[in-house]
Amino acid sequence: MGEVKVLGLLSSFPCVRVLWALKLKGVTYELVEEDLLNKSPLLLQMNPVHKKVPVLIHENKPIAESLVILEYIDETWKTSHSLMPEDPYDCATARFWAKFVDEKVVVSVFEAMKSEGEEKEVAIVAAQETLQLLEKQIEGKKFFGGEKIGYLDLVVGWMSLWLAAMEEVGGMKLLDSARFPSLSEWIHKFFKVPVIHECLPPKESVVNYFQSGLKYLRSLEAAKN
Amino acid sequence: MGEVKVLGLLSSFPCVRVLWALKLKGVTYELVEEDLLNKSPLLLQMNPVHKKVPVLIHENKPIAESLVILEYIDETWKTSHSLMPEDPYDCATARFWAKFVDEKVVVSVFEAMKSEGEEKEVAIVAAQETLQLLEKQIEGKKFFGGEKIGYLDLVVGWMSLWLAAMEEVGGMKLLDSARFPSLSEWIHKFFKVPVIHECLPPKESVVNYFQSGLKYLRSLEAAKN
Repeated sequence: MGEVKVLGLLSSFPCVRVLWALKLKGVTYELVEEDLLNKSPLLLQMNPVHKKVPVLIHENKPIAESLVILEYIDETWKTSHSLMPEDPYDCATARFWAKFVDEKVVVSVFEAMKSEGEEKEVAIVAAQETLQLLEKQIEGKKFFGGEKIGYLDLVVGWMSLWLAAMEEVGGMKLLDSARFPSLSEWIHKFFKVPVIHECLPPKESVVNYFQSGLKYLRSLEAAKN
Repeated sequence: MGEVKVLGLLSSFPCVRVLWALKLKGVTYELVEEDLLNKSPLLLQMNPVHKKVPVLIHENKPIAESLVILEYIDETWKTSHSLMPEDPYDCATARFWAKFVDEKVVVSVFEAMKSEGEEKEVAIVAAQETLQLLEKQIEGKKFFGGEKIGYLDLVVGWMSLWLAAMEEVGGMKLLDSARFPSLSEWIHKFFKVPVIHECLPPKESVVNYFQSGLKYLRSLEAAKN
């Protein structure tokens, strides 16, 4: 099926989404680790629009944006483990929530991590409101994809490690199991799946990743003021 | 194939994307016009997460987010007019550019319309840079979808009317045909397709829509300061 490379970074969850999908499909790949402070000429050439990881390179053709890559992998390697549901309505629902996760949940959790003082209190409430909507989606289900891990599980999968790292860096607790019992249980089950577990970086590297990111953001803000 | 309703607004281009797709598929629908300043209980019930149009209601089940709806329509009504390309790589490319259009092009054009003074100059350059990337995508092609209108044409379709309205409201010219010959030619061809033309609202109503939107935004900003 041709050579498969991933330009990525283990501490970045959109990249790990792609690795999970490839592993679930049994596709052999080479991970080319990128240094985001010194991006490779290959990354700039393969994703000239956004200059971001992950990029999947399949038979020398690049695809960027993790959600787009997940669908490509599912459509290209049609194994018995489908990532997208069969029914068009279920597909639409999965795509709707994937968009919600990236545009609302991730963004609001990042805001809560980043902000300070009174703003932080407000941001924590906002982040928990988005998590509450996800909590309702997983209630009574084993996985978002039903009996097995699917597309939406991989999209929400950052909660299995990156959420805890963001809580640590932000000095806050967003997801307590009393308030979010179903999400907490899902994280537990998801984390235990061997393919999922195998791709996870050490938590420390993710904590460092967010700490460096925050430091960089604050230096930019300081330079503006 | 069950009852099809669209909660929407003719002057909002994400809604018209959905109407175009339904018409291309030959699906009969009822458009339920929404007043965005006084949203209907049905809209709030059908899209409780975002409370936004468009919502497609098919057999009493709601789907929100125009890009998600377009894919649902394509997967549900499998007529000879496919919206998505057949090849997974072409699908991925179409999805990549659709995301780019909504997250970068629309946003940067809106910024250019909204901003004033020196900021406007900078915003116009930024918007034209995003348009330049689209210009390269359509060079040498009849439609983004190839020989016939596809998913990405419907996503870029707002340029056939809404872009000109935004230029008028913002007192600016972004898309001149000397600098963007291929996009200009595409707009011309797209506009002339009967199904496309039929769904377009009068330009005045779109101009009013953006003027009211800007007025509302500025009143919010004034209240904050």
